[in-house]
Amino acid sequence: MESNARAILLIGDGMADRPVASLGGRTPLEAADTPNMNRLAREGESGLMDPIRPGIRVGSDTGHLAILGYDPYKIYTGRGPFEAAGIGMDVSRGDVSFRCNFATVDANLKVLDRRAGRISEGTKELADAINGITIDDVTFFFKESVAHRGALVMHGPGLGAQVSDIDPHRENERILEAAPLDEQDSASKKTADLLNQWVLRTYEILKDHPVNKAREAQGQLPANIVLPRGVGIAPDIAEFDTLHDVVSACVVETGLIRGIARYLNMDLIDVPGATGGLDSDLMAMAHAVVDALDNHTFVLCNVKGPDVAGHDGDGQAKVEAIQRIDQMVGYLYENLGDTDVLVVTADHSTPCVVKDHSGDAVPIVFWSRRGRIDDCTEFNERAVTRGGVGRIRGTDVMPLITQLMGVQEKFGA
Amino acid sequence: MESNARAILLIGDGMADRPVASLGGRTPLEAADTPNMNRLAREGESGLMDPIRPGIRVGSDTGHLAILGYDPYKIYTGRGPFEAAGIGMDVSRGDVSFRCNFATVDANLKVLDRRAGRISEGTKELADAINGITIDDVTFFFKESVAHRGALVMHGPGLGAQVSDIDPHRENERILEAAPLDEQDSASKKTADLLNQWVLRTYEILKDHPVNKAREAQGQLPANIVLPRGVGIAPDIAEFDTLHDVVSACVVETGLIRGIARYLNMDLIDVPGATGGLDSDLMAMAHAVVDALDNHTFVLCNVKGPDVAGHDGDGQAKVEAIQRIDQMVGYLYENLGDTDVLVVTADHSTPCVVKDHSGDAVPIVFWSRRGRIDDCTEFNERAVTRGGVGRIRGTDVMPLITQLMGVQEKFGA
Repeated sequence: MESNARAILLIGDGMADRPVASLGGRTPLEAADTPNMNRLAREGESGLMDPIRPGIRVGSDTGHLAILGYDPYKIYTGRGPFEAAGIGMDVSRGDVSFRCNFATVDANLKVLDRRAGRISEGTKELADAINGITIDDVTFFFKESVAHRGALVMHGPGLGAQVSDIDPHRENERILEAAPLDEQDSASKKTADLLNQWVLRTYEILKDHPVNKAREAQGQLPANIVLPRGVGIAPDIAEFDTLHDVVSACVVETGLIRGIARYLNMDLIDVPGATGGLDSDLMAMAHAVVDALDNHTFVLCNVKGPDVAGHDGDGQAKVEAIQRIDQMVGYLYENLGDTDVLVVTADHSTPCVVKDHSGDAVPIVFWSRRGRIDDCTEFNERAVTRGGVGRIRGTDVMPLITQLMGVQEKFGA
Repeated sequence: MESNARAILLIGDGMADRPVASLGGRTPLEAADTPNMNRLAREGESGLMDPIRPGIRVGSDTGHLAILGYDPYKIYTGRGPFEAAGIGMDVSRGDVSFRCNFATVDANLKVLDRRAGRISEGTKELADAINGITIDDVTFFFKESVAHRGALVMHGPGLGAQVSDIDPHRENERILEAAPLDEQDSASKKTADLLNQWVLRTYEILKDHPVNKAREAQGQLPANIVLPRGVGIAPDIAEFDTLHDVVSACVVETGLIRGIARYLNMDLIDVPGATGGLDSDLMAMAHAVVDALDNHTFVLCNVKGPDVAGHDGDGQAKVEAIQRIDQMVGYLYENLGDTDVLVVTADHSTPCVVKDHSGDAVPIVFWSRRGRIDDCTEFNERAVTRGGVGRIRGTDVMPLITQLMGVQEKFGA
């Protein structure tokens, strides 16, 4: 099909909620003044969406993967790959990745502190010292992230991800030996054997590193080993543009979502002032989204603020975050043409009463001047149940967008 | 997640229905006075639930299995295992079980009466005489149930359940030889070979048993053989508490549901006066449910009455059964705390006009003081279509409960 349509998928992170007592029993979406979202509801089709399936508590990573068209039950083996990608590491399909801690061990490899005295400086130097080690045909890429944390990417042929942890997950115990969960699984055996060698190598390199010598001189615990955990294999999945026949860009704030977008080979657009907090410059993000439409047909935008407020249990802050997203919606609406598509939803609920992700469905609205119109006239958890979309799943979202855009191939004759 | 929430899942067996002429075209749920269920609807979220999938006519066993989180298409091979468990037999994962009849055969093993003259006494003695036979490495446990019925459990290694019937299902034909449905299926071949030997053994033991000698002396047909049918293999599924991270109990009336609960290792609670009929002492059951919450976090309660009335095609009796369940709901409601969850639904529809299970969806309401509220204000088949739950499936029910309780692990970051 020929189409010049463009689509924006705007995700208010954790935006959906439950009744909040301090808001008079309304949800933040009900309590907020959202004329622009409500206009989308009046002019479009609304409903409820379960990111994975009803009742399942999803993370931001699994929620986004599902909404972007990838079934997490099939492709998500652990946080490692997307965390590594999120801090800017190259992660290729088949790579095995880990979340890591810098830790302190004694000469017998007994763990004295799993966070190396909560080291906050010098980790870049330490990471550089152990980055790029090759053992057999596998190269170990390592990069520091926040505080004592980092990520490891094992790159090489024939690696498996079914391996036990090295991190004993408590102190005063010797580090464990990674082992394949199934002895017959030669790919995972390869990963475990090389990983065990690499961990010992990090100790040999780090124990005498100048950063650690300086720490010890000041009475601080040395960051003399790296403990990997959260193993996952980078799934062999199609790139986003290939899967959906779009040219995509991504305006997002958090590393985890950046990592997903990067892995899917979406264009990453940096926005000065986009902090991921409640103070983030959302209008700058909205401008970046509209600008991206000049040379992309699909833009994913994730705003983290509502999730932050939900985790804090702060209903009023969540109302304000939502109202600022509504202003973004107003700007986006003004800048869309006759064939364009705007979809607003959340990746999961973060109810103030729970202060964490819940398994409640999230509202979603599909808007296009060429699309259907239903009886729903407001955008919130309760109103959308009167909408025409009914109750759909995350993996339904992209097909519903690409058919509205008119870029989806017909299945059949 | 830390949580002190508890949940009750109250199932009105076959409670859902269709319009009944004698009720002025209303369903029994519409015609009944149900202030307590309606309060749940006003304060909670309602919708329709297909126990398996839309239009599928389910049994009480398959309906309950699905609602409890087990996909019957994957794990349900036949009634045998759950019937055997339901009459109190030990059934282990991998056992092959059968529903059985005591029957009468002549010396050529031609079936004279498939129900042994509808024998009603002496079956315990007969069952004891053939219980515990071992052939090769398989032990055959047998127990009588009601009238001419019983159940057989084959316990031993490497058994399959793809075998043809021994029961010819009509009279004046010789009993059949069980055979594997696929000759290459050595596990099922083992089952068939041993089962054929066992059936002949029952004839050898029973034909001269004093109970049968006495029957023959009185001109009654002897129960001189056992005919197995309804083969099923006990599925290798997780126990309920492990699957859902709860501590569960079960207040149910019928053997079939007891069998399921037993197999899932839920605590079975006996309630004097719970008969499974329209005269059952439902308030005693309600008290038992609330008592069970003292040391359990999840209680399943099944009330059989509405199904009995539906099978009878008696709309007025069904209205009365529903009103008595509504009184239970009132008592349960009064005894639940701020974080607790109450869910009311049915395992299937038993419409009076059908006098059997239909494939119609059933209403369901999720209530918690911490949960969402929708626009539905009554609990019946028609009103819940305005609810926020939309149309879900049986296997969605437990995730929706455990996320409301706050005991479900997050999938992802």
